[in-house]
Amino acid sequence: MPPEALTFAVTARDGKARAGKIETAHGSCETPAFMPCATKGAVKGIEPRELRVAGIEILLSNAYHLALRPGAEAVARRGGLHKFMSWDGPILTDSGGYQVCSLAARRTITDEGVTFQSHLDGATLKFTPERVVEIQEQIGSDILMPLDEPVPYPPDPRTARAALDRTHAWWRRSRATRGALFGILQGSVDRDLRREAAETVAATDPPGFALGGFSLGETPAQMYETVDYTVSLLPDPKPRYLMGVGMPEDITAAVRSGVDLFDCVLPTRLGRNGWAFTEDGLLKVRNSRYAQDDLPLDPACEGPCCRNYSRAYLRHCFNVEEMLGPRLLSMHNLYYYGRLMKRIRAAIRDGSLGAFQPWKNRRSP
Amino acid sequence: MPPEALTFAVTARDGKARAGKIETAHGSCETPAFMPCATKGAVKGIEPRELRVAGIEILLSNAYHLALRPGAEAVARRGGLHKFMSWDGPILTDSGGYQVCSLAARRTITDEGVTFQSHLDGATLKFTPERVVEIQEQIGSDILMPLDEPVPYPPDPRTARAALDRTHAWWRRSRATRGALFGILQGSVDRDLRREAAETVAATDPPGFALGGFSLGETPAQMYETVDYTVSLLPDPKPRYLMGVGMPEDITAAVRSGVDLFDCVLPTRLGRNGWAFTEDGLLKVRNSRYAQDDLPLDPACEGPCCRNYSRAYLRHCFNVEEMLGPRLLSMHNLYYYGRLMKRIRAAIRDGSLGAFQPWKNRRSP
Repeated sequence: MPPEALTFAVTARDGKARAGKIETAHGSCETPAFMPCATKGAVKGIEPRELRVAGIEILLSNAYHLALRPGAEAVARRGGLHKFMSWDGPILTDSGGYQVCSLAARRTITDEGVTFQSHLDGATLKFTPERVVEIQEQIGSDILMPLDEPVPYPPDPRTARAALDRTHAWWRRSRATRGALFGILQGSVDRDLRREAAETVAATDPPGFALGGFSLGETPAQMYETVDYTVSLLPDPKPRYLMGVGMPEDITAAVRSGVDLFDCVLPTRLGRNGWAFTEDGLLKVRNSRYAQDDLPLDPACEGPCCRNYSRAYLRHCFNVEEMLGPRLLSMHNLYYYGRLMKRIRAAIRDGSLGAFQPWKNRRSP
Repeated sequence: MPPEALTFAVTARDGKARAGKIETAHGSCETPAFMPCATKGAVKGIEPRELRVAGIEILLSNAYHLALRPGAEAVARRGGLHKFMSWDGPILTDSGGYQVCSLAARRTITDEGVTFQSHLDGATLKFTPERVVEIQEQIGSDILMPLDEPVPYPPDPRTARAALDRTHAWWRRSRATRGALFGILQGSVDRDLRREAAETVAATDPPGFALGGFSLGETPAQMYETVDYTVSLLPDPKPRYLMGVGMPEDITAAVRSGVDLFDCVLPTRLGRNGWAFTEDGLLKVRNSRYAQDDLPLDPACEGPCCRNYSRAYLRHCFNVEEMLGPRLLSMHNLYYYGRLMKRIRAAIRDGSLGAFQPWKNRRSP
């Protein structure tokens, strides 16, 4: 991998936490960074220019979904995913490894790779370690993920062992690329497996590390502990990405352990369903208590939704099923996450991350 | 009605067509103007600030729907509809008269008024001519509509006669307001009834005239002819609003007859369903021919959708059911309508409206 494909510089530290900057061929992002999910090439209901307003600098997309529709070659012919979706910043793509779990009923795993039955027309789709890297190259991804095999919690020990061996075998087959291909560490909540994963992958000196296999049923405490342990085994100067996590307190805890990148569907999924992130916790906007509430969703927020709309109006939009409601709450939540990461980076620079509280309430929905 | 509630000035003429300006307590709009439908207090999926980008200066909302949810008093307590929905321009509200037709199975008409059975919970809602004006005052509407009784085409002559008599009886009962209450002319496609309507309503000197009872099944030719005849009977210096119309060629024809205001759900409804207005006609974006088409929806359009997204990308969004697709096409179509009205106003000022063609194709879906 040519070193120019991705650079990472740490600019401030607070304990194990670091603030820094990732540079790619499509511009840079400050870390710790949150990546909204443009799984199929669009963040649900939100335009790229609106993501910029929310302080978002890097997106996640998904090789499996784009390979299905419109097809990796089709994206390539349109000039790549950046041009196709009109986003000029960095894009990280997941490999389809997560779909090994989420589409468990529709796939077969062999040492060769994963065979999916398309959820659209039943067609057979073969994902090999080689092919998923090729797909991401065709798409024009800035940060690529190898094919991996996460296991749901609680794992059967033999299953976790076999999945880790396969993940490492696939990793060895998947490295022939000019792109910034991160190594993925699996191993569920087993410290020995996580150590083996960290050592095996670190030995190959990838440009960054992804921590996979979380948010799959384990408790927050198990996740925090395993993340902290795993990150402690990684070489310092490479970016670390905690896949599919998560709630503000999860992100805060992982940043304290030294994680730099996050993605999660929660801000848009919860927004579409009427939940707003605020400094006081999650607000259920459909609640009738807000019918006469002229405050913005979060009085501490200066985003476009909170500057223009009251809780009463947003509740009304959900109440009468106006699509503006899901859209405005998705935007608000992305703005919340953009601001959360800014606050976290500022706390690292100030040396105050230890006392940092993302919000007053604990996890809700 | 105090004369300061609404002023209308004609600034240019081309045949019977006029360009002008309506001033209200919430700012002005240039005419001929198109009003997007914010039926329930939101243009579907689109923010007010985006309407401004599309060149939209005036909105339509609906007293019936807002009276149901959140209730007229609730809107009043929130500071009125403008503040509630964050739109600072003029708002015209329909009375619920249209729902006399569209919700025919759920209402009973008597001389007293219309009783609706709520489509939500079966509750009985009584709309009298007095009450619908009061609702619109509570909402804070800039241009109010009286309760009326449109009849679907083809009308039974006795039904049309009775509906017109009732519309006029309701009109006489509904005028005690300080707001700009337009008179509504009914009479289906019957010239005698339309003449009677024009004379009856004009005799009361309202601040403007609404032409109701169109787009209810009659042919375009019947509509054009009846509109042209009816407008010819109206006093010149008052604004004229053709309710619920329509396609670009319908608007162009009605402007040529001297109509100043239009509303229609088509730009957003067709947009949500994957149809884009272009200078070449309606484009069905789901069509597989666009899968590899890098052109914008309308190469002649400089709106935000056409500047940023290709037909191939928009087709992909519809194909994978991303909500960004309906939203972007709705925005594009509203931009098309905003630009259409600008082009029409320019043609009137140039004296070239006779040769004006809104688009190359004829009506489609």
